[in-house]
Order: sequence, then C-alpha cells, then structure tokens
Amino acid sequence: MVNENMLLMIPGPVPLPPQVLRAMSRPMLGHRSDDFYGMYASIREMLNKVFQTDDEIIIISGSGTCALEGAIGSLIGEGDKIVALENGKFGERLKELGNLYGTSVPVEVEWGHSFPLDKVEAALSEGAKAIAMVHNETSAGILNPAPEVGKLAKKYDALFIMDCITSIGGDYVKLHEWGVDLAIAGSQKCLITPPGLGFISVSKRAEESLSEKEPYYSGIKTHLKSARKNQTPYTPALPLFYALEKALKLILEEGMEARIQRHHRMAEAVRSAITAVGLELLPQLDEYSSYSNTVTAIKMPNGIDDSTLRGTMRKRGILLAGGQSQLKGNIFRIATMGNNGPAEIMRVISELELVLHEKGVIKSYGAGVEAANKVLRA
Amino acid sequence: MVNENMLLMIPGPVPLPPQVLRAMSRPMLGHRSDDFYGMYASIREMLNKVFQTDDEIIIISGSGTCALEGAIGSLIGEGDKIVALENGKFGERLKELGNLYGTSVPVEVEWGHSFPLDKVEAALSEGAKAIAMVHNETSAGILNPAPEVGKLAKKYDALFIMDCITSIGGDYVKLHEWGVDLAIAGSQKCLITPPGLGFISVSKRAEESLSEKEPYYSGIKTHLKSARKNQTPYTPALPLFYALEKALKLILEEGMEARIQRHHRMAEAVRSAITAVGLELLPQLDEYSSYSNTVTAIKMPNGIDDSTLRGTMRKRGILLAGGQSQLKGNIFRIATMGNNGPAEIMRVISELELVLHEKGVIKSYGAGVEAANKVLRA
Repeated sequence: MVNENMLLMIPGPVPLPPQVLRAMSRPMLGHRSDDFYGMYASIREMLNKVFQTDDEIIIISGSGTCALEGAIGSLIGEGDKIVALENGKFGERLKELGNLYGTSVPVEVEWGHSFPLDKVEAALSEGAKAIAMVHNETSAGILNPAPEVGKLAKKYDALFIMDCITSIGGDYVKLHEWGVDLAIAGSQKCLITPPGLGFISVSKRAEESLSEKEPYYSGIKTHLKSARKNQTPYTPALPLFYALEKALKLILEEGMEARIQRHHRMAEAVRSAITAVGLELLPQLDEYSSYSNTVTAIKMPNGIDDSTLRGTMRKRGILLAGGQSQLKGNIFRIATMGNNGPAEIMRVISELELVLHEKGVIKSYGAGVEAANKVLRA
Repeated sequence: MVNENMLLMIPGPVPLPPQVLRAMSRPMLGHRSDDFYGMYASIREMLNKVFQTDDEIIIISGSGTCALEGAIGSLIGEGDKIVALENGKFGERLKELGNLYGTSVPVEVEWGHSFPLDKVEAALSEGAKAIAMVHNETSAGILNPAPEVGKLAKKYDALFIMDCITSIGGDYVKLHEWGVDLAIAGSQKCLITPPGLGFISVSKRAEESLSEKEPYYSGIKTHLKSARKNQTPYTPALPLFYALEKALKLILEEGMEARIQRHHRMAEAVRSAITAVGLELLPQLDEYSSYSNTVTAIKMPNGIDDSTLRGTMRKRGILLAGGQSQLKGNIFRIATMGNNGPAEIMRVISELELVLHEKGVIKSYGAGVEAANKVLRA
C-alpha cells in the first residue's frame, strides 16, 4: 500500500502544490493548435522571468538528463574537447556525455570536495570548445563556483555549460553575469512541477557555435526553430505543460527573491540542526564553494546504518535520500527544494532527532529542533 | 478561451477516459522506492499483454520519436546500413534517424503508395544490419505489409525495426509471427495515455546485436538493465506512469480482440461514409497493403480548402488533422484511435457531411451518415 501522504525530502520529485496536481486532470488538446501555442508562449515568458534571462529557452519533454544530452550533444561534436568538472554523480554524467559526443577533459576531485581553480584553468588552457559544470551538485550537497569558472571560461574563450537542474528556482543563478551559455534545468526540482520536462536556455554565442550534427530528439537547433513559433518539434507531454504553467504562476506570485531567500533559510536550518546534534556535513569547502541551498549531504553517523536511519524515517512518513554510487551508505541527504516551509522542516528535524536519540546515536533530544527553529523563526 | 470539450479526432493525443485524467492528480512518490518499483512491475506485465509479446519492454519518458531514436541509435552505429522504407512523414523520420547514426538505404515511394516488395528485397539483398518500416503510416493512412517485410528481413538476416506507434493497442500486431525485433509504441495513440512516454519491445536477437555506443538518454542497453530491476535509469515522468497504469487496466478490461475489432469498425465506418459522399481516400493500395484502421486520410475535395473545412469543424467542437509536409492542404485526416465509439464517430460524420453540404461540396445530406451507421450498428 503506497503512502500518498509521504513527505518527500528527496532532491526531486518534490511535493507538488495541490493546484499543480489538479492542473493535470485537464483534458488533452491538439498540440498543433493555437490553444497550445498560446499556452506555450505564456510558459516561455514566465520561464524567462524565473531563469532571469532573455536568452531563448527551449522545453524538452524528457528528464533533465535528456536536456543535458541535448545541450552537450548539440554543441560538442567529434573532435571537440570539453572540460568536464566532476565532484559528484552529476559531474560524472557531464563527463560521460562529453565522451559520447566528443572528448572530455576531466577535472576530477573527490566527491563533495571543491575544485582547485588552478586545475580548472590548466585544463582550459590546453584549448577546449566548452567547459561544463554542475552548479549545485546534488549528490554531494555542494554549490560550485559559477562566477569563477565563468571568468575562466571567458578568459580561454570556451563556452560555459552549466547544469542548473537543482539550483534554478531555488538559488541565485546569474546567467548573464556569470557568462553561462547553456543553462539546463529540470521540472521536478525547485520548479514544483512533476518530473518529465527539461529546459535549456541558449545564449546567442551558443547558438552561433552549435555543431552541424545534433541528437535527433533533444537537438537545440530543432527545438529553437519550433520554439520561436511557440511550437515543439515533437508531441509535447501535455499534462506536464499544464502543471508547469500553474507552477510558474505560483513561483512568480511568491517572487524570485523571496523564494530564493526561503530556500536559503530552509537549508541553513537543516545545517544548523545537523551541526547542533553533532553530525557532520559532507562537503569540503574552499573560499569559492559553499554548501548547497537546496540539498544537505550529511555523513552517516556511527551507531546507525543507512537502512535503519532512512527506513525508520520512511515508516514515520518522511522520505530522505541516500548516497549515490560510491557515497551509498556513507551519507544521507535532506532536500529542501520546492514549496516546503518551516512546518515541513521542523517535522523532519524533530523526527530525525528522535530517531537518532532512540537508536542511541545522540545522547539527548532537543538541540537540533532548537537550532532549526532559531533559523526559521528568527 | 480554450474549448476543453473539443472532440479530438487527430492521431494523438486522443481523448482520455476521465479515470486516466484523474489518476494524474495523485501526489508524487519517490522513484527510487518500492512504491515505484511495484507500479513499474505491474505496468510492464500489462504492457506485455497489450503488446502480445514476452519480449522485454522498456519505457522511456519522452515521445514516440525519443523511443525511435533509442531504437535506431542503439542498434545502428557508424558504418552500419539500415534499409529505411518511406511512404509518409514517419518513414522519412526513420530514414533521417538511420542517417544520423549510420547510413540509410532508402526505399522511397510517393507518400500514401504501397512499397513494391521487389524494391524492398533489392535493397536488402545488398546487405544491411536492419530494416525499418512504419507499420501504420499515420501521415498517409496506410497500413504497410508487416508479414511480407518480416519475411524478407529474415531471408536477408536483417533485424526488423517496426514503428508501431499508431498500431499497437488498436490493430493486430504480431511481433513474433512477423519477426519484429524492435517494436516502438507511443503513449498518446491507441493506448489512451497522455503524450510523453515511448516504448520499445526488444527481442533477444536485437539485444545481442546492440551497438557498443548508444544514445545516452534513450539507449536500450541502459534502459534494459534498469527495467529488469523495475527501475528507470533517469527520473520517470511520474504522472504519465500513473495515467498509463490506469489506461492499461481499462484496455485489458475491454480485451485486445474486442478493442482491435472496435478500431477496425470505427475506421471502416469512416471510410464507408467518405466513399458514400463521393470523397476519395489517399492511399494507393496493392495486395499487401491496406487502409489504416486507426486513421483515415482523405483527399481534399474540390470546392473547399483545408482551413475552411477544418476551421468550420473546429468551431463546431471537432478537431480533425490536416496533411503534413508535402501533403499539407491536400488531405485531411480523421483518426479513430483510443476509446471513441459509435457516438463520437456518428457525431463527426454527421457534422462533416453538414459542412460539406453547406459549402456546396456535396449535393445532398444523409448518405454518409447512413453508411457509417450501417457499419457501426450492423
């Protein structure tokens, strides 16, 4: 029996506002009709406000990974080099995509660690068409140095591809200021829409630099051509567009600044609580990186294992995320994306602290709740 | 103002049963959890019944075109030849995909015409890894000769890829008997699910013949590996899975034989009516091809143009499809897929006949209605 009241604190899908859920039960419409074109135009206009850019934004009916493939596969062709920064699972994906379409020059550090900027510069200095970085590395809870990497990209005349899948809509993303040419986002993270839509914002410079060849389904050239007529090249996943239209309205009603500040506060509350009860955060920061404001990665404490910790939380109606690949079992993650607020955060922290206490991991109950409450209700 | 009561008679998206629409407003769940794995297992079991095969079926969160790219891109690599049969828009797509991943050997005839089997055989006899054909060519309303092409594929040891996007769930598709190795379907056609999911059934022979390299997002190897654990490699478009689960239940409740017979009857009713009022069907058949049982392509009669005909019908709440590419303006199409029945067909025929009569295209009203009624209520 599925518990439909499960509180999802995983980095996507996030809990959806009831208005967004209801929007999906609207009947289908003809996607080659003014009904769809009108909706698409209004969605693209709102997306530009949420992305805070006037670059063209395309919408692909597929997950964020589909959009990532569209971005890298449309820009990088045989013989092209792309510097791929990896400090987590999604950086690894950029590297794999780079090698599928061209050649990746990887800059790899231990997952959760910061990138030494001199290594990034060294890789770029050998010449590359582009550099790709994950802005908010969800797998490790670290926010990577977008402004600094953007400056290096500019210095070496490389296009800057940034995976903003878990930052756009929940954290500051300054595409123009940082010189991002292709920014990729996903629907099911901070944009409070179900999974199944991917977005790419395309700078003029990126458009002029596209490869001759591109992936068929997710190719940027094909999508741009249609998007400028408010169309999609292939049949769009209509219910997800209905949901997105409603979600974007809700996001803009809250306002981008208020929304981002709320995300910052939620993540800070989680970090405060975690530190207060004596647990440790995974990321190893330097002066250019910081903790993620949408997901917190926590080292698994002694005295409890992953399945006990997350299994007990799940039984109590809260779904937390585990670690991926080599981090599996070593960390757990609490996502704070979407429309959650103090009520949800306090429920999670309180329950987590109880579980840790019951299992003997921490000696007393209360410090975490107090710390989180202080941040949220300051 | 969007008319949400519009009767969609286009070849996808089709009108959805209210139960399917409602299924989508269910809250999100964690896709890396038993809740999802259980749903996925039940969906895959039902899909095998609907596809009438025990081959593994993978589900990709993307349109039918995404699944087509997955199929061709996973089987065909640089240096591989693929015979691509084209007698309509979707055959053209197979050819384009073949050329993106390998080399297409096209067999092209005028859209809506049958393939001369000797030409198909001649193309195969020069050696090719695979042959690709659209089973039901939606753009031209023609059902292509699957058993005969399957035999030729076997004779020349080529893998048989068949685009069944608008046939599976609405017409007979005998994958094993015809020797189909990769069959592709889409959610928004005869499977009464919203657009946004694509399916590929994979024969053992196809699995053993996959290329080393495959598209990242839609690659068959990647999806098969996950599907066998009832997982998806990337985040699935959850609401569409909820819809699909409900839709498959409804489809199996009706039963495949009854469902296919109903589709045959609906298309026959449309053809009878069209012929009775003196209009002409587009397809030029030979003994191996036949009219599509899910979409009827009709030559635009003298005395009326596309925008008047379809525009007037649209004002009266019925959405018909036009022609695509070179057929634009020259034909219109009436799709009969999904869960429509006599009530919808009679409404369409009656209204169409009225419009044709009012615009002076036909002299009297009634012959079409009578002909359709006779087929439907025999």
